[in-house]
Amino acid sequence: MSELPKLMEANRAFSDGFNAGDLPMPPARPLAVLACMDARLHPERFLGLEIGDAHVVRNAGGRASEDALRSLLISSWLLGTREFVVIHHTDCGMLTFTDGVLQGSIREKTGVDVSDMEFLSFSDLDQSVRDDVERIRNAAKILPEDISVSGHVYDVKTGILREVVAPALVEP
Amino acid sequence: MSELPKLMEANRAFSDGFNAGDLPMPPARPLAVLACMDARLHPERFLGLEIGDAHVVRNAGGRASEDALRSLLISSWLLGTREFVVIHHTDCGMLTFTDGVLQGSIREKTGVDVSDMEFLSFSDLDQSVRDDVERIRNAAKILPEDISVSGHVYDVKTGILREVVAPALVEP
Repeated sequence: MSELPKLMEANRAFSDGFNAGDLPMPPARPLAVLACMDARLHPERFLGLEIGDAHVVRNAGGRASEDALRSLLISSWLLGTREFVVIHHTDCGMLTFTDGVLQGSIREKTGVDVSDMEFLSFSDLDQSVRDDVERIRNAAKILPEDISVSGHVYDVKTGILREVVAPALVEP
Repeated sequence: MSELPKLMEANRAFSDGFNAGDLPMPPARPLAVLACMDARLHPERFLGLEIGDAHVVRNAGGRASEDALRSLLISSWLLGTREFVVIHHTDCGMLTFTDGVLQGSIREKTGVDVSDMEFLSFSDLDQSVRDDVERIRNAAKILPEDISVSGHVYDVKTGILREVVAPALVEP
């Protein structure tokens, strides 16, 4: 049973009352959030972001993958963001497996060898935040000069955001 | 002037009234959304998703990049999602540049040659949706058997979601 009819019905209700006016393409606040795809995270809600305010990049873990860096380069160079906020969270799925276990499981179920795929799982939540902030800082030489980055953990039970890495300018 | 103090203040207001209870890690609805990072898209709002309902993967363009596939593999194999919904949108930044132009601009401003970086810009919005649905379908042999995928365009002015690729099972 597809979820789509319910999504489309919700979209009709949303769009009935919606008038975006002429919001421009660049975010109203010069901000890009990098967060996990987890269903319990609604970053716009827990950060108080309005429609048009900020870029939100999300993937499994909220990792600063090569693709997340692609998005942050587009966000900053083309659309003027100057502050990146990395957000991982408690009870993250990425803490519950290792790349080897998932590679083995996919091979067992599909017969395909995916041992060259990195899944970016991690075992230490705060360290994963520090690692991803560092990965963005390591890209300093291809980012605009005045970017700052910080790192945080969101608690899925309390809704509270806790700072792990204080904001600092990214410098080559 | 950092955006963080305002974000933290909004987070305090949010968490004051927040009680997630014991929402489990797997999404309540077996759904993963892949959408653009654009500030004018709040997918949870325009799709009627509650906290805990669905994974939301986002990047520049809502592209089915290798990293998005990583997220969808984790989402489906480990956390039980079975329906992927790809959402691009009108007035997307990805329509306004070419990879070559951005590569040239970054080289000019930083001195670094990034000509080997793919930015995944596109020139035809509906085709970009078809391409990304196809890219997910091309990964069928490493996905669970019962995954369906569809493709859509969100209109940033009207808030209306328009189907471009009807939902269909991903089959090897």
